[in-house]
Amino acid sequence: MTVGILGATGYAAAELTRLLAAHPSVDAIVLSSSSKEGERIEAVYPHFISTVTDNRDNKGNKIEGGLLNAQAVIDRSDVVFAALPAGVSEPFAASCLDRGIPFIDFSADFRFSLEDEAVYAAWYGGAYQNKEAHRLAVYGLPELNRATIKKRVAEGRVVIGNPGCYPTACTLGLYPALAKGLAAEGTIIADCASGVTGGGRETKREYHYSEAADAVTPYKVGAHRHTPEIARNIRQIENTVHHSLIFTPHLAPMNRGILATIYVPLDEAWHEKAPQGTSPSGDVPLPPSEKTAQRAGEIHALYEDFYRNEPFVRVLPPGITPSTARVRGSNFCDISVHLVQNQTGSTLIICAAIDNMVKGAAGQAVQNMNIVLGRPETEGLTAIPLVF
Amino acid sequence: MTVGILGATGYAAAELTRLLAAHPSVDAIVLSSSSKEGERIEAVYPHFISTVTDNRDNKGNKIEGGLLNAQAVIDRSDVVFAALPAGVSEPFAASCLDRGIPFIDFSADFRFSLEDEAVYAAWYGGAYQNKEAHRLAVYGLPELNRATIKKRVAEGRVVIGNPGCYPTACTLGLYPALAKGLAAEGTIIADCASGVTGGGRETKREYHYSEAADAVTPYKVGAHRHTPEIARNIRQIENTVHHSLIFTPHLAPMNRGILATIYVPLDEAWHEKAPQGTSPSGDVPLPPSEKTAQRAGEIHALYEDFYRNEPFVRVLPPGITPSTARVRGSNFCDISVHLVQNQTGSTLIICAAIDNMVKGAAGQAVQNMNIVLGRPETEGLTAIPLVF
Amino acid sequence: MTVGILGATGYAAAELTRLLAAHPSVDAIVLSSSSKEGERIEAVYPHFISTVTDNRDNKGNKIEGGLLNAQAVIDRSDVVFAALPAGVSEPFAASCLDRGIPFIDFSADFRFSLEDEAVYAAWYGGAYQNKEAHRLAVYGLPELNRATIKKRVAEGRVVIGNPGCYPTACTLGLYPALAKGLAAEGTIIADCASGVTGGGRETKREYHYSEAADAVTPYKVGAHRHTPEIARNIRQIENTVHHSLIFTPHLAPMNRGILATIYVPLDEAWHEKAPQGTSPSGDVPLPPSEKTAQRAGEIHALYEDFYRNEPFVRVLPPGITPSTARVRGSNFCDISVHLVQNQTGSTLIICAAIDNMVKGAAGQAVQNMNIVLGRPETEGLTAIPLVF
Amino acid sequence: MTVGILGATGYAAAELTRLLAAHPSVDAIVLSSSSKEGERIEAVYPHFISTVTDNRDNKGNKIEGGLLNAQAVIDRSDVVFAALPAGVSEPFAASCLDRGIPFIDFSADFRFSLEDEAVYAAWYGGAYQNKEAHRLAVYGLPELNRATIKKRVAEGRVVIGNPGCYPTACTLGLYPALAKGLAAEGTIIADCASGVTGGGRETKREYHYSEAADAVTPYKVGAHRHTPEIARNIRQIENTVHHSLIFTPHLAPMNRGILATIYVPLDEAWHEKAPQGTSPSGDVPLPPSEKTAQRAGEIHALYEDFYRNEPFVRVLPPGITPSTARVRGSNFCDISVHLVQNQTGSTLIICAAIDNMVKGAAGQAVQNMNIVLGRPETEGLTAIPLVF
Repeated sequence: MTVGILGATGYAAAELTRLLAAHPSVDAIVLSSSSKEGERIEAVYPHFISTVTDNRDNKGNKIEGGLLNAQAVIDRSDVVFAALPAGVSEPFAASCLDRGIPFIDFSADFRFSLEDEAVYAAWYGGAYQNKEAHRLAVYGLPELNRATIKKRVAEGRVVIGNPGCYPTACTLGLYPALAKGLAAEGTIIADCASGVTGGGRETKREYHYSEAADAVTPYKVGAHRHTPEIARNIRQIENTVHHSLIFTPHLAPMNRGILATIYVPLDEAWHEKAPQGTSPSGDVPLPPSEKTAQRAGEIHALYEDFYRNEPFVRVLPPGITPSTARVRGSNFCDISVHLVQNQTGSTLIICAAIDNMVKGAAGQAVQNMNIVLGRPETEGLTAIPLVF
Repeated sequence: MTVGILGATGYAAAELTRLLAAHPSVDAIVLSSSSKEGERIEAVYPHFISTVTDNRDNKGNKIEGGLLNAQAVIDRSDVVFAALPAGVSEPFAASCLDRGIPFIDFSADFRFSLEDEAVYAAWYGGAYQNKEAHRLAVYGLPELNRATIKKRVAEGRVVIGNPGCYPTACTLGLYPALAKGLAAEGTIIADCASGVTGGGRETKREYHYSEAADAVTPYKVGAHRHTPEIARNIRQIENTVHHSLIFTPHLAPMNRGILATIYVPLDEAWHEKAPQGTSPSGDVPLPPSEKTAQRAGEIHALYEDFYRNEPFVRVLPPGITPSTARVRGSNFCDISVHLVQNQTGSTLIICAAIDNMVKGAAGQAVQNMNIVLGRPETEGLTAIPLVF
Repeated sequence: MTVGILGATGYAAAELTRLLAAHPSVDAIVLSSSSKEGERIEAVYPHFISTVTDNRDNKGNKIEGGLLNAQAVIDRSDVVFAALPAGVSEPFAASCLDRGIPFIDFSADFRFSLEDEAVYAAWYGGAYQNKEAHRLAVYGLPELNRATIKKRVAEGRVVIGNPGCYPTACTLGLYPALAKGLAAEGTIIADCASGVTGGGRETKREYHYSEAADAVTPYKVGAHRHTPEIARNIRQIENTVHHSLIFTPHLAPMNRGILATIYVPLDEAWHEKAPQGTSPSGDVPLPPSEKTAQRAGEIHALYEDFYRNEPFVRVLPPGITPSTARVRGSNFCDISVHLVQNQTGSTLIICAAIDNMVKGAAGQAVQNMNIVLGRPETEGLTAIPLVF
Repeated sequence: MTVGILGATGYAAAELTRLLAAHPSVDAIVLSSSSKEGERIEAVYPHFISTVTDNRDNKGNKIEGGLLNAQAVIDRSDVVFAALPAGVSEPFAASCLDRGIPFIDFSADFRFSLEDEAVYAAWYGGAYQNKEAHRLAVYGLPELNRATIKKRVAEGRVVIGNPGCYPTACTLGLYPALAKGLAAEGTIIADCASGVTGGGRETKREYHYSEAADAVTPYKVGAHRHTPEIARNIRQIENTVHHSLIFTPHLAPMNRGILATIYVPLDEAWHEKAPQGTSPSGDVPLPPSEKTAQRAGEIHALYEDFYRNEPFVRVLPPGITPSTARVRGSNFCDISVHLVQNQTGSTLIICAAIDNMVKGAAGQAVQNMNIVLGRPETEGLTAIPLVF
């Protein structure tokens, strides 16, 4: 099987190349770049030198180092990934649909359905030109949409809108609580931190080492483009009760990782009158009670049960919180759940960690490829995290 | 003036030493350590070598390098700081009160009033032995309690309970919103990240470089001891409307800094029916409207006005968010305000950054000392941040 | 094939577990720990949860999570690795020799031959008890000793002394220059920086995040235990000309990686009279001349040629210098060569980068295992570096 | 006194502004920027907001936030600093000389004397236009040229060529050894690491956070422009014996700091026949002997004595090595000395650490200003390092 990558010089594409080079079912990888066509990928990423791009003995070549144009890549591929900026994927999707091969897109272009075109237009600009491609598109969060992806594959043609990094962490964190009806109507808050690779390869002041090092900084507060994607996922999981979403991203001084801390107001059933206790002097909370710990245990069990058969979601044992380090380089999403009960009500706190480059981008894309091609879903994705 | 520091080998004490050595009104600093009495501070912190501890010419000595016992330090000092573990400060406070000199304590021992002794006991263990010392104690957040501190000083005797790092950032962030009655009844969420110096000098697995580097990790979710301190401050500012608090700390891979992102449900007066707009398909938010930006501007103006005369609180111009880097080494608290309006209501998001070692500990203690001693409040605290 | 790891809770063992779990020829991994016998490895390293240690479906288990005692591990294994402190490996080696299985040791215990016992004793303390085990030992730097390892295997019994991290980088950097007789008699200087994982899992003040972050610090200058190991390797490669070695390690603020910068005085044949040029005013060098660049090219070609068939050594193209990031998580050693010519003579500068945990420890051990077991030498070691 | 800074938006200028704002003798700072004239410095560096640039009360203003053109700044200043790119300082120097005010230049333009113009031309390009300005220029390393600076000041007109960061660390490390005649003829090697701020504020691929984080990388090996500056300083100190210089810079993952490790072959007087001892098997060194430690102590004493009256050079006690962290934010240069003796001879290893932004740039410039203006040399430079 030959796999094509459009826009091969970006960080997500480099990560995808790394993963595909180790994928048992992938025989060859061909790369395109509009800006560096004719050059070699090793000139952009010297760490690829003498890996599987090595041509010295003409054997075992997996990555073809030479950068082609997009059409040449599509023509040679059995499946195509696009790691391009927003707004340019449509024609390549169409070309793949014409050739009858799957197209897996990293941008937001195919994350919103036809009915949500207005959402896409409002946040990203531009309108859908090729309605058919969007009709065939599935939002590629396998834990949520695995069945739909398989159905579309069975029907013969599919475009995958690979999820954003923040939406992946937030949605996986929220899924059991929403699906099981734990959440009360109200505001869900997702407070998240991302590593700097999330900003991509292009140099910018805020990603200059001297500016990003040793600093945690919020950005695009209340106005980040991943907001509608997360909100749409919430609606898909639970559309009988209304949940408003607030999403705040922060830049953290590390290369990889997303840590999402999510606050969900719980249904009254989960609350008992002021179980946490407050001071005699009023309003100042006492430490969590045994009772609260017990109910937290119930929610933990519910999460564990919900994700029992998901190979990439790890509900951590009580007492362990997710760390971005513990998922580094892997396709895992680590989750912990916590309960706070006070006079206002009960709140579920979910912490979720992913590697933004793997489960948040390239690894999830490979997971989607595995589903689309009928391979075992974990194929090529079993690496243990590079924790330190 | 001679200043004494008890527990001089910890990080907060080292930072205090650094600040006091540059303080125009401080003539000499004397240090105690129970574990290293008789040794020299340069043996613990080689970066103090040949600074103002230098004895070569017997001139201009500010820090006395030799570590004494606590009583010897108290006996020689005009003001005493204690940077000791929780639960041991009382006798030293008593000793200072006896000598008629101010006592400024870094631990939680004097942060809770007599009426909140049950809160202290529940979260920290132990009971108050010396009620008188606690009666004389003031919670030393100058922006909140400046007048009370001055009143106590005027009455002749004072103990300062220097605030915790997280409570400082959270309380300064919340103060204007609560004092001006913007907040609706409900849950206030403070989602915070701290640098690793917050964990102190003692080696622990979670602060081992290889474990803490490149990782964001939540800890003590819903159960951190700073929770009651923040909640108590909220109650002090606004006790007519009930606010429950949820506080989540995270460890971030940097040495200094706290970034607090705080979510406050706003009073209905700040809300207009679904001003943010949602998609025709329902429930998915559109980008913030002009109207929302306008109302955010009103809140920004209110914050600017509220803090106009506070020398250490900077309400950043619209479009700039706080960064822990931009307050490093300084006593500043940087604040930005943001508004999110959705179908559920309006939420104020406040981002606040401090240096946990300065405004979150040693700098605030110096600020308290300045107040107590009748010095200009900014004396010795005017350094520009070491931004990179 | 079942593989055993003694001392499974250390960092090098964790890295070895990560690599072996992905190794095609390894069916099961069994672990020992003297301090945590009876516990599970996931309790020590939560990032192993739900990886191949997962027992939920009783299928595909590679890592057995339960920690056994050393003998139980040896009894069940086809090959044994020991990641133990210096001075305790001998009895385990003996036990493996008795059972007729290979023993691969990470400590310095088997890095020095019988004839160099005095060297071992002087730097590490202790004397060899089991002379036979040492007689069977080979220093496991495959690029240098591949033939000897194979010969020992053919003879039936083998102990591998897996090289130290610094010696690996330095020896691979020096090998071609020494083997080809480029070096003049004199002093070879190896100035090296290491990531903090090199210090292991045990918490120590110098590896406390707040002490190690943002700091480059030399340590054990002129007195590091890896000095005799590097010097011995130099002597093995080239024993007709005397070279004295100076080795200086530095701690750098990163988790992984060793960067070695090595200075070798070149034989006069490589020098031409003051080719770099100096100022008319005397003694101040002008920029490198075309002629120098040309001769540097010759040395580069010689290095490329020398390592042409080594799968893990990459001689970088001119203009690219090694970066620890570009070998992270991989078994590669990246090398660049540079020439400086001045009035004193010509000096070769070799820069070499490895991942201290992989080529500097666990990866090299797997490479040795592959050789010992007759597997392809790159098996399980083809991962592309996790560059960011 | 009013101080002017030309090129105020760069990192070194920002650091200079930070230092001057705390300088007791500086009343006002005026800033120029060719690219941002008319804007305010807070728009470039928000961390300056509400510091001494604050105009709210029209009192105590030290920094004037508005960016002027260069001539306006020169016209208002009593002393002018230029933090401009190489090749553009001459006319500004001339303008200051005309006005009779000192000019302190951060670039290399005034670091080389008239007799070394060919060196400047060969490494930096361009020729001297204004010979008179160069005739009046002094290389501003106070420890080396204090007397010359004062002499020039006494004569009425002076231009200071403020040293480069690497040359400062290397020269201070070498000075006692060379001045006392310890060094034998031969090659001196300076192997150095720098923090990323050394690369300045301009965004470049190699300073992109994701590329620079977690990586040590050599660059411009044998070809860095600071080579002739260091070599010239060596020649100035010791011109009776020839020393060739090799200088290798590395980029390290931290914001600030330079760590120089320097190797100096010692005169035979310091050597005794193979005092370190080698193995019976030949050529493998044994650990350093007592005798070597003794002689190292003599060199240490010599260094201590040499720098006894230098306020900014700290010769560390035996057993402590310099760390970039321990000089952060300060004007200190920390030095340790080490001795290695082997069969080839004896080598002195000097480790020196500075903050590249302070002693390596802005702090040294302030030190020069103090000398030029007849102020105490440490004025405004007594801050204790921000060690963590």
